[in-house]
Amino acid sequence: MVHVVLDAMGGDNAPGEIIKGALGALDASPSVKITLCGKSEDIKAQLEGKTYPADRLLIEDASEVISTEEAPVMAIRRKKDSSIVKGMTLVKNKEADAFVSAGSSGAILVGGQLIVGRIRGVERPPLAPLIPSTTERGVSLLIDCGANVDARSSHLVQFAKMGSIYMEHVLGVKNPRVAIVNIGAEEEKGNMLVKETFPLLKNCPDINFIGSIEAREIPNGGADVIVCEAFVGNVILKMYEGVGKMILSTIKGALMSSTRGKVGGLLIKPSLKDVMKTFDATEYGGAPLLGLNGLVVKVHGNATEKEIANAIRQCETFKEQNISQRIADKIIIKDE
Amino acid sequence: MVHVVLDAMGGDNAPGEIIKGALGALDASPSVKITLCGKSEDIKAQLEGKTYPADRLLIEDASEVISTEEAPVMAIRRKKDSSIVKGMTLVKNKEADAFVSAGSSGAILVGGQLIVGRIRGVERPPLAPLIPSTTERGVSLLIDCGANVDARSSHLVQFAKMGSIYMEHVLGVKNPRVAIVNIGAEEEKGNMLVKETFPLLKNCPDINFIGSIEAREIPNGGADVIVCEAFVGNVILKMYEGVGKMILSTIKGALMSSTRGKVGGLLIKPSLKDVMKTFDATEYGGAPLLGLNGLVVKVHGNATEKEIANAIRQCETFKEQNISQRIADKIIIKDE
Repeated sequence: MVHVVLDAMGGDNAPGEIIKGALGALDASPSVKITLCGKSEDIKAQLEGKTYPADRLLIEDASEVISTEEAPVMAIRRKKDSSIVKGMTLVKNKEADAFVSAGSSGAILVGGQLIVGRIRGVERPPLAPLIPSTTERGVSLLIDCGANVDARSSHLVQFAKMGSIYMEHVLGVKNPRVAIVNIGAEEEKGNMLVKETFPLLKNCPDINFIGSIEAREIPNGGADVIVCEAFVGNVILKMYEGVGKMILSTIKGALMSSTRGKVGGLLIKPSLKDVMKTFDATEYGGAPLLGLNGLVVKVHGNATEKEIANAIRQCETFKEQNISQRIADKIIIKDE
Repeated sequence: MVHVVLDAMGGDNAPGEIIKGALGALDASPSVKITLCGKSEDIKAQLEGKTYPADRLLIEDASEVISTEEAPVMAIRRKKDSSIVKGMTLVKNKEADAFVSAGSSGAILVGGQLIVGRIRGVERPPLAPLIPSTTERGVSLLIDCGANVDARSSHLVQFAKMGSIYMEHVLGVKNPRVAIVNIGAEEEKGNMLVKETFPLLKNCPDINFIGSIEAREIPNGGADVIVCEAFVGNVILKMYEGVGKMILSTIKGALMSSTRGKVGGLLIKPSLKDVMKTFDATEYGGAPLLGLNGLVVKVHGNATEKEIANAIRQCETFKEQNISQRIADKIIIKDE
């Protein structure tokens, strides 16, 4: 049994879609238990008339909500009765295994560190979303996209280890290929951070390090685990979104400009939908914040039912595969 | 009259496409004069049977070629009779206005600094390609994509000024919007470099600074001049290429998987070609290396006739608009 605390108040579609996702996940697996954390009245109103296994769906009342506009550290310190603080506290106290939220990224990152806490030896917990790529699994892990800007080389080495463990045991990728984002394929290329990190990764026995990866090769499936510091990771993630949107809207515009295009457009609509799916983050669940004493998963602010359900399924595998312990083993033994 | 030295030996398609591009540019404008720099026998062989204005097409013999595999600094120092060193020396000696090459990026960047030399006051010359975006002009300037990794805030401020001048006077964008690449829109977000640079840009009287830009908004036309340090710039540029290729091949695959898709695919082929054009770098000429005592333009390694001709046209505008002097005025007066 995995016990997941779900932030019922986080994200653009809360609480409706969040709660629908919870019910879907309960339906899909008998070994999932969920605590909905948030304003109990709102939650109860949403549950009215629905059928669900009451013994596996609990409610934890939290009267406050942390908005995306609030300064994260301040919000986590002050809003003790918020869904994020209360939900994470359940994980910290080992009353639950995982916390899933579509709420403020900043608050989730800060709360993860301050409330749930890091595994001994982990210097910084990275946020690691799955991004579309032409690997066998159709995704690669981008690590770190979190708040760890200005990271040091030792952090990146830990990211590489944690990312490897995640891809191998949660995604089932055998001996995942680990690469560091660089501006050229040669070992001597790069900025100071990459030059310092490269030999450390090369000499790291726990991972299958394949060297540098240029950004162009990331969508092309050049590696399973893409290691970078958070600023670069953020740029990569958002370029996917930006370029994808731009191309698809350009195609749409081009098709609408001629009768021939319009007819063709109608015919290819189902195929284009498939393509959009490839770029649809809801397929991949959420992004785990790795290296904590319990799992924290950040899902998109505009997450819908399906994404929430997927994120919960991810928590199940994470627990089954004992990822936190695997990370603890690798980090403590090798780095201290 | 603008006098452009063209590296006849640089790039995958040299010397054939390079020389075709030169002839095209001579045809298109009577005020262009070109010196083809490279192995004169090879050049003469290519010119055989072609008609061209002999008074505007010269040959500068250079027996050596710098390959993309060579270490740039070493190559520039040792290969004194290479097309890059000899070509750049003509610019340095004011015998020519500009040097255009599809050869080794590293050697072009190093040669630009060591041979052509920086304008007094310019700390580092940035490489500034135009990237597709949904601005009115259809492009934004990404500055820097060069070799200046681990840049300082004062460099970024100079990039912003030089980029502004280029977009205003070469591309004709009035009062170009300048933004700094960041991981959030708020002023307090960012890594150390961005946090340090932001207030400097905000207080810079010479530019129309509009604040931070998230990577997602770059293709969406969020700014005309996109300021960042070279590592991030390289990632942005290459994500365009990688994501674009991935989406278009995914669409192709999706269309080929059904009869309906195949028929629709045939109908939309012309429209898709238009979209590809948007992503086709040949439309935008090359990337200028700004802040030097003369213009140096880097074109893609796989540049064809058209891209070479466009790059030469760019040199014409650059000279007409007196960009180097404008940069010298802004940099020296304001920064020293």
